[in-house]
Amino acid sequence: MQFADRLQGVEASAIRELFKLLGKPGIVSFAGGFPDPTLFDAEGIAQASAAVLGHDAGAVLQYGATEGYPPLRTAIADMLRSQGAEVDAADLLVTTGSQQAIELLAQTLISPGDCVLVESPTFLAAIQCFRLHGANVVGVPIDGYGVDVDRLAALLATHRPKLVYLIPSFGNPSGATLTLERRLRVLELAARTQTIVVEDDPYSALYFDAPPPASLLALSAQVPGSREWLAYCGSFSKVLSPGLRVGWLVAPREWLAKATMCKQFGDVHTSNLSQAICAQYLAMGRLPSQLERMRSSYAQRAYAMADALQTRCGAELSFLAPRGGLFFWVRCAGAMQGRAQELVRAALDHGVAMVPGAPFFANDPDPSALRLSFATSDTATIQEGVRRLAAGLHALRDADCPTDATNAADSAHGAASSPA
Amino acid sequence: MQFADRLQGVEASAIRELFKLLGKPGIVSFAGGFPDPTLFDAEGIAQASAAVLGHDAGAVLQYGATEGYPPLRTAIADMLRSQGAEVDAADLLVTTGSQQAIELLAQTLISPGDCVLVESPTFLAAIQCFRLHGANVVGVPIDGYGVDVDRLAALLATHRPKLVYLIPSFGNPSGATLTLERRLRVLELAARTQTIVVEDDPYSALYFDAPPPASLLALSAQVPGSREWLAYCGSFSKVLSPGLRVGWLVAPREWLAKATMCKQFGDVHTSNLSQAICAQYLAMGRLPSQLERMRSSYAQRAYAMADALQTRCGAELSFLAPRGGLFFWVRCAGAMQGRAQELVRAALDHGVAMVPGAPFFANDPDPSALRLSFATSDTATIQEGVRRLAAGLHALRDADCPTDATNAADSAHGAASSPA
Repeated sequence: MQFADRLQGVEASAIRELFKLLGKPGIVSFAGGFPDPTLFDAEGIAQASAAVLGHDAGAVLQYGATEGYPPLRTAIADMLRSQGAEVDAADLLVTTGSQQAIELLAQTLISPGDCVLVESPTFLAAIQCFRLHGANVVGVPIDGYGVDVDRLAALLATHRPKLVYLIPSFGNPSGATLTLERRLRVLELAARTQTIVVEDDPYSALYFDAPPPASLLALSAQVPGSREWLAYCGSFSKVLSPGLRVGWLVAPREWLAKATMCKQFGDVHTSNLSQAICAQYLAMGRLPSQLERMRSSYAQRAYAMADALQTRCGAELSFLAPRGGLFFWVRCAGAMQGRAQELVRAALDHGVAMVPGAPFFANDPDPSALRLSFATSDTATIQEGVRRLAAGLHALRDADCPTDATNAADSAHGAASSPA
Repeated sequence: MQFADRLQGVEASAIRELFKLLGKPGIVSFAGGFPDPTLFDAEGIAQASAAVLGHDAGAVLQYGATEGYPPLRTAIADMLRSQGAEVDAADLLVTTGSQQAIELLAQTLISPGDCVLVESPTFLAAIQCFRLHGANVVGVPIDGYGVDVDRLAALLATHRPKLVYLIPSFGNPSGATLTLERRLRVLELAARTQTIVVEDDPYSALYFDAPPPASLLALSAQVPGSREWLAYCGSFSKVLSPGLRVGWLVAPREWLAKATMCKQFGDVHTSNLSQAICAQYLAMGRLPSQLERMRSSYAQRAYAMADALQTRCGAELSFLAPRGGLFFWVRCAGAMQGRAQELVRAALDHGVAMVPGAPFFANDPDPSALRLSFATSDTATIQEGVRRLAAGLHALRDADCPTDATNAADSAHGAASSPA
């Protein structure tokens, strides 16, 4: 099948359809996957923009190198080294958001028919991007501590995939974080089976209490032979601004050269203004306090969501509270089992939006799963949203037993009118 | 052959190799394909950036629609309508530079083995992009008035190409502009043979004396059935700033929907800040005077180059002076015929850089052709550069006839030392 024809196989997703229903006024939305724009440091970004357009306009407004704006490449390499990873500027390519890093890896590594292993569930746009390039995408089970490494090892042996795509820290949609021990095992598997592992890492800076374990990129120094099988996708989208579209790809230089050539014919280079703003922002030293602010806001919201869900829906919905990132992965339990899609509709009827979990699976979708994001709502709104979710849940449950419900109402009425 | 393997077929171009030689201090460069950064309206762009980050930071810094920032889509549609084309905002997709528009057309329209017709010569990155997607790229001869429509008709019949890629106004590298009569014939051919025509139009606003004929997009209204076979790529790179990476694709909505889906998995959307700056800049009304300034500067430089080439190299180099754009397409004549590559080296030895024309041909490269850009040099530098080119030319010519040259030197010496 040709590239253009495969487009027809990438369905208009359930999520996209759902978003069409979100126009209703007054709705509480847990459906998005976006950071909260009120937390962006607009003032700092405006200062950075004014500075670079003031002192380096010629370079910022002219064509630039496909590899990236040199001061930004250096700044990103410095930042990664401060996180324990051995990275030079020449080891990375600046990309138009980390989605482009995924796309360039797909373009340069995947041939139609290749197998790609992903977490089950994982980032929907990654599944779709790999499929667009003709990959047979296969899910590997995960739990609250990330990918199941024994199952991964078995699927590596069975499928001989071209690459394994993982979001080790605060995954989307799972919220799960891969343990240190599992990270090291993943790296050993990569080296032993000579399989490319793609680490997508947009959320690791957004931890609530303590940082997640070091990245696979940093840990690869401890596992001989693993670094040459590792690609790392980073992004400023969740910590600074997604609208600037600046991410990066760290990869062995041979792949990086191929990705750079594809990017040259794809968009020549990423917006120099966006790149220069990121470099200037880092140089201004504002990122650490900005991260503190985001971590504390998101943590507060996540704790509020955990409390409200536990209190109002504890019997029917189970979850492992995330320790960073933007998402709760919730499973319908008891009488609600397998009914996430119905619950999404019932909740929407009661004024709160969320997305079903099924589209996030490459195969064998879990019909009980839901993704809720707390990122863009304040704590009062989160409490109100969960109240509505509980109302939708109870309406759905009550609708199952119309007779019981009528009886209950009757008996309540009867009791109230009883003279006794 | 798979996508990744085709990368190996896209050679490190002669131009890229040449650029490595350009580091020498004091060199005059006619080699680039870039606009002059000193002509950018940095002040206006800084004002636009401050305005959008001041009043709309939340939207500008957040994720946006893949289709583009709504005020920019509207503004581009308005601009195109003012140029006579019937375009709504919904008919266009904002792209990360017009290179991405070409890439998205290649992704969605070309299957490996398809034929693509291009002008001979044409934009190198377009040839390479089509080849990367597996196309068999075939050149159609052009003259000083654009593509030879009779030859185009014949090649359409022979090759049944998937698409025809043209730069009708002030082509790169040819500088040629397609006449109105030929434009209408191209549209008739598109409609009659049901062949997609891609109009790449980055230069049409940069005319020296009078505007070029209306775009194929505008003229399609006069040729029944042609619009549905037409895609149009536009860009702010040459008129405002390439560093912002903002272009657009106008196409029939069915293709546009496919291109939008590819872009969604490619880079999600173009930098919102870049898009908002372009929209704000247009709203500020600064573009007309900025265009006047660029036209007048480039015209002055082009006239200076034409004069200098005519005066100093008229016997050995022939050219048709362009009436807009950034490029002279020059052919070696007389004893220099077929020796463009040698001339490039000899000229570089004398301190002026240009690029050979051969890489701009999909097939049957013209070994006599050279591309010279006047865009980034002032008139005095242009005169000095052409003086050096002439010196290189004469050195090459004299080296052909070492005996004659020695004789001439001897006789001159003899004459000078003669007592008579």
